[in-house]
Amino acid sequence: MFQITPTSRLRPSPYYAATVAAGAKSFITYNHMLMPTGYGDPEGEYWRIINGVSQWDVAVERQVQLKGPDAGRLAQMLSPRDLSKQKTGQGKYVALCNHAGTLINDPVLLKLDDDLYWLSIADSNILFWSRAIAAERGLDVEVSEPDVSPMAIQGPKAEDVVASICGDWVRELRLFWFRRTEIEGIPVVVARSGWSKQGGFELYLMDGRKGTTLWHLVREAGRPYDIGPGNPNACERIESGLLSWGGDTDDATNPFEVRMGRFVNLDVPDDVIGIDALRRISAEGSRRHQLGAVMAGDTPIEAPFWWLPILRDGRRVGDLTNFVWSYRLKRNIGFALVSRDCAVGDGVDIAHGDLTISAELTELPFI
Amino acid sequence: MFQITPTSRLRPSPYYAATVAAGAKSFITYNHMLMPTGYGDPEGEYWRIINGVSQWDVAVERQVQLKGPDAGRLAQMLSPRDLSKQKTGQGKYVALCNHAGTLINDPVLLKLDDDLYWLSIADSNILFWSRAIAAERGLDVEVSEPDVSPMAIQGPKAEDVVASICGDWVRELRLFWFRRTEIEGIPVVVARSGWSKQGGFELYLMDGRKGTTLWHLVREAGRPYDIGPGNPNACERIESGLLSWGGDTDDATNPFEVRMGRFVNLDVPDDVIGIDALRRISAEGSRRHQLGAVMAGDTPIEAPFWWLPILRDGRRVGDLTNFVWSYRLKRNIGFALVSRDCAVGDGVDIAHGDLTISAELTELPFI
Repeated sequence: MFQITPTSRLRPSPYYAATVAAGAKSFITYNHMLMPTGYGDPEGEYWRIINGVSQWDVAVERQVQLKGPDAGRLAQMLSPRDLSKQKTGQGKYVALCNHAGTLINDPVLLKLDDDLYWLSIADSNILFWSRAIAAERGLDVEVSEPDVSPMAIQGPKAEDVVASICGDWVRELRLFWFRRTEIEGIPVVVARSGWSKQGGFELYLMDGRKGTTLWHLVREAGRPYDIGPGNPNACERIESGLLSWGGDTDDATNPFEVRMGRFVNLDVPDDVIGIDALRRISAEGSRRHQLGAVMAGDTPIEAPFWWLPILRDGRRVGDLTNFVWSYRLKRNIGFALVSRDCAVGDGVDIAHGDLTISAELTELPFI
Repeated sequence: MFQITPTSRLRPSPYYAATVAAGAKSFITYNHMLMPTGYGDPEGEYWRIINGVSQWDVAVERQVQLKGPDAGRLAQMLSPRDLSKQKTGQGKYVALCNHAGTLINDPVLLKLDDDLYWLSIADSNILFWSRAIAAERGLDVEVSEPDVSPMAIQGPKAEDVVASICGDWVRELRLFWFRRTEIEGIPVVVARSGWSKQGGFELYLMDGRKGTTLWHLVREAGRPYDIGPGNPNACERIESGLLSWGGDTDDATNPFEVRMGRFVNLDVPDDVIGIDALRRISAEGSRRHQLGAVMAGDTPIEAPFWWLPILRDGRRVGDLTNFVWSYRLKRNIGFALVSRDCAVGDGVDIAHGDLTISAELTELPFI
């Protein structure tokens, strides 16, 4: 862990002051912003997500807004998932690929209207990418980054908290569906979504001046449920098998390699970016696939900053892209991006500096 | 200052181990990597650049490589600077713009051969951008990020250090020109360049496994000149008027607004991205321009994370995009991105939280 130097290349989150006041101790950068990554009690923050309700500043999930007559056409060109049946008010988890079929982001695509979409993005520059495609193809669409900043409320008690703020209609929302509304005059989109498998909602704040107000409002509404601050949790997301784009992927990763094949429809129109490459890869089979890895030993191992080589019978077969100490499994577990001939049950070795750690390849998710 | 949480979304620099061993205390993220930003003695590190020689890990300046028959065509399409006379072995500082004429990066473009170029980029994703343009236009060019990691050697004694390593031919290199060579068997490009106005060189390491070796080799060669570790220096670069893309620019900044008009040639071919918009902006005049701001008071003021509003006669006229305590001027100085009707000599107010700080607009550079 090192100090982050202040710089105006990092934009502030509307919740920044509130999270600092709530005791944020560490941050990470994401889409040129700071995201809190801890409030001083890692294990307590984890169990709060599993058993209670946790409040996250995820304003770093920036929105790339597509607005205009060709917004829907552009959305479909950007993603190889069939969007023809997407309804207004529905979100869809999509793969964005480049012309070679390489995964360049994995956003949730929200359809706000026939001519208005948001891509709620992971940590890569989809604003530039979408503008390049729109301009090169002469589409009638404006691509921008609106003043929209999500806050996540995650955990089994999240629904009670959000219902107490917005009303019981939120209990009927299906996964990834959303509705525009106001909370005490603050414009928001309320969606059933979030980067955990413990259930929950995201409030897309549509007025950056109201970040502190909204944060406090949720905190007060959550008090009966013992809400507390948290963040997208490395342990929970690895246990649950959730992908981190750019962390679990590299510059040659296609959707099939990382369990996103079911979000690729090979019969989408030919002008969808990368679809030719994806059809070819689908026919030929991917070079790699993503499995779990359970490492030997029952004490936490410090994670490095980058991928660790995985060897089988002394031969490099892939990489451990992320791992974490699992509080529930009491093991170090991680994601293995390994060659196709590696299978569940294989024993492998992980090279971690001077150490060699035995591991077994497993199905995902872990839990 | 906050802790950075380790994550595999941040790739390691080949010099990482060496900079940590040299005492790196703080880092910033840039192009999904960590860059050291201090070794515990800010003022000493500053004067070392001004009076001596300083060694920087700037591996975060990633290279976007254009390779193939259409590499030169793509390079010209990406930049509104006339490249028709660029020679092999010559670098050029260029503006990259989007179709609206907005500045999206300000790299040095190195021509390594007729079919091989590197864009040595600032902190935005030009790999995706260049691939989008190349693919949409059907160009015969491969766009990649090669294993190339610059180290900068900056300051008035840098030439002596680099000459002692590479030979006296480096003394003849002109600004931004470069040569491929080897240093004790390590493949490098040696360029007269670097993000300071104190003179110096960049060694583009072409084998990431040799980072520690090259770092130590330069440190030993620099010992007679009292070399020490440093980094792109906020104070020196603001005094010298050097732009920080993404820090001093926003999503509406064109090259004319930030003193890069002389790198825009309006008579480049019509297929150069953004040239229509730039011709129109040039004819109509920009809405804003960049001036210096010298703030009242003779003690350092703590910098915020983001831009500060600038007011004249109570009306908002622009933003202070960055400022720093100048060790040479003994004033807080910064860059003002202000409306065109603001002029050198104008008195303005800067809103810094609850404070209002008087300032005078000045020419750039400061020194």
